[in-house]
Amino acid sequence: MSNVPLAPGATIGIIGGGQLGRMLSVAASRLGFKSHIFEPGTNPPAAQVADVVTTAGYEDLETLKAFANAVDVITFEFENIPTEALDAVEAIRPVHPRRAALGVSQDRLKEKAFLTELGLQTAPYAAVDDAEDLAEAIAEIGTPAILKTRRFGYDGKGQARLMSPDDATQALADMAGAPAILEGFVNFSHEVSVIAARGQGGDIACFDPGENVHKDGILDTTTVPARLSPSQRADAVLLAAKILNHLKYVGVMGVELFVTPQGLIVNEIAPRVHNSGHWTQNGCAVDQFEQHIRAVAGWPLGDGQRHSDVVMENLIGDDMDHVPEIAKERDAALHLYGKADVKPGRKMGHVNRIVRR
Amino acid sequence: MSNVPLAPGATIGIIGGGQLGRMLSVAASRLGFKSHIFEPGTNPPAAQVADVVTTAGYEDLETLKAFANAVDVITFEFENIPTEALDAVEAIRPVHPRRAALGVSQDRLKEKAFLTELGLQTAPYAAVDDAEDLAEAIAEIGTPAILKTRRFGYDGKGQARLMSPDDATQALADMAGAPAILEGFVNFSHEVSVIAARGQGGDIACFDPGENVHKDGILDTTTVPARLSPSQRADAVLLAAKILNHLKYVGVMGVELFVTPQGLIVNEIAPRVHNSGHWTQNGCAVDQFEQHIRAVAGWPLGDGQRHSDVVMENLIGDDMDHVPEIAKERDAALHLYGKADVKPGRKMGHVNRIVRR
Repeated sequence: MSNVPLAPGATIGIIGGGQLGRMLSVAASRLGFKSHIFEPGTNPPAAQVADVVTTAGYEDLETLKAFANAVDVITFEFENIPTEALDAVEAIRPVHPRRAALGVSQDRLKEKAFLTELGLQTAPYAAVDDAEDLAEAIAEIGTPAILKTRRFGYDGKGQARLMSPDDATQALADMAGAPAILEGFVNFSHEVSVIAARGQGGDIACFDPGENVHKDGILDTTTVPARLSPSQRADAVLLAAKILNHLKYVGVMGVELFVTPQGLIVNEIAPRVHNSGHWTQNGCAVDQFEQHIRAVAGWPLGDGQRHSDVVMENLIGDDMDHVPEIAKERDAALHLYGKADVKPGRKMGHVNRIVRR
Repeated sequence: MSNVPLAPGATIGIIGGGQLGRMLSVAASRLGFKSHIFEPGTNPPAAQVADVVTTAGYEDLETLKAFANAVDVITFEFENIPTEALDAVEAIRPVHPRRAALGVSQDRLKEKAFLTELGLQTAPYAAVDDAEDLAEAIAEIGTPAILKTRRFGYDGKGQARLMSPDDATQALADMAGAPAILEGFVNFSHEVSVIAARGQGGDIACFDPGENVHKDGILDTTTVPARLSPSQRADAVLLAAKILNHLKYVGVMGVELFVTPQGLIVNEIAPRVHNSGHWTQNGCAVDQFEQHIRAVAGWPLGDGQRHSDVVMENLIGDDMDHVPEIAKERDAALHLYGKADVKPGRKMGHVNRIVRR
């Protein structure tokens, strides 16, 4: 792994062509890089702004290798990339962030164990593979609790709530046989997230923490600054740095935290740019997408300080109907994803509202 | 011409694939539009971020027509589009801004006459087609003065200075037989520009005027806010609005003004997004590129007020050597154009430095 920065004109390979890949592509272009998207689905949002797009499945190792050979460095917009696919490209070009981070974040159980080992607080948890495990876990953790598949969960998918032990059978059935983890409820006042970055030289930069509000299990708004005391703010940044350093991470990571009277509890980590960091597009000189590209390309990181307060609101499904009104608002910056079909629960775009100080 | 706003998913056709077309493409993508670039040169900067690129010359009318049929509305990044090419596409799709503005700005003599007719101040000028005209013009305007080709001039090209009448023969030779215009020198303290926009409904929005400094005939920096008294600021905006309204203009226009004790003197107008408006990318919620796309697409305009003070600096030729240092600066936002070859005098990118207030 070399620390020589990639020169403008080089090509960044991005696995995944959704809205995150789209915004990574645009950020790469600002630094003079070309982007090459690898995505199994046709007409992905990122294709509209990328230099080159390869459409192929993750099992198509020959095409993956050709993709790797055509780019200078590889990153990804989502964490559930099959191991074989990573093996294929990693043999040809550097991949950032490293797979250690993927290994941790792809599995909720490994993630919790990793965080606990680092001395960080998480929700109480226990592995659940069958009804017996679940009964033991409920006895230990109590209810209410939430049963989640260990892998491939996002935006509330693959989750079942247990309000009492009576819900155990149904919750286990919802897992459809997948290995799961029971997590105890955390009594938190609000959720914040730290969008943290680590460069190839080990330098770390964090954006100001944002405060997240979810609706129907999907992020609704992120407000910056978050309600945090100075010591909570320092804690948030320090624990994020601890995670990144321990993983020798290169790139941007989203770290979701519950704020409780007992301190900050890590909800989950995402080894990629994160929805709760979209506000940086209109709050910072270097946004999270460019920050990630800078890290991946071996460039110096932006310092992460904001020039403006921002409230980010996701536009989900029919929220697209509000776009004509939002377009009339003062200080509202729209970011639409170019998705052809509006579907319930689908992230169609977001708006960053700059708050005049 | 309809005032129904284009819906996200529509395609904006952009004639010209340089850095302005590139930044217009990115802005279009933020509103969920696709972009389709028409550009004679191969591998233009805009191609790296556009959805579709057509490579053909302006004399290839069949390909121009196919381009027009493939898009929903057409705009351009530069003003020297041949009349026949405009005829071909205009018959198929709306073109914004309208050709009236192009007709004026493509010819320095027409432009000066138009501005004078509107009651605005310009430098003293006279048409020069031959040595006799030039002798008369010098007698009327005096020296120092500057002889410019009427058409196809930009960034100091096609210009010759006359420090005394003795320079007349050489200056005329520099015009290589092209129709020219002699302009008297204006005794100005500084130059400012107004980036003004007019929507399809006739609404007007101006960004805060920026103060421009040139080096070797090329824009070097734009600083916002510009040094202007409140009344000068109002004058600048009002005269820009007068120009746009008179042309029933749709889109963004750059209006360059000399600040003198006798008031504001119009240097030139550019019927497109303008280098002196690049600061808006990091100073406003809606930048000049998105503002232009909004106008062209029939959307409401952004209000143009800035949230931050900005100093924009162009990166010309070897200035690219400074990129590694600029990347380390706090509050510096880089915008590189993806041009493969560095050449003296070539605009390679710019940096917007946000000034903490």
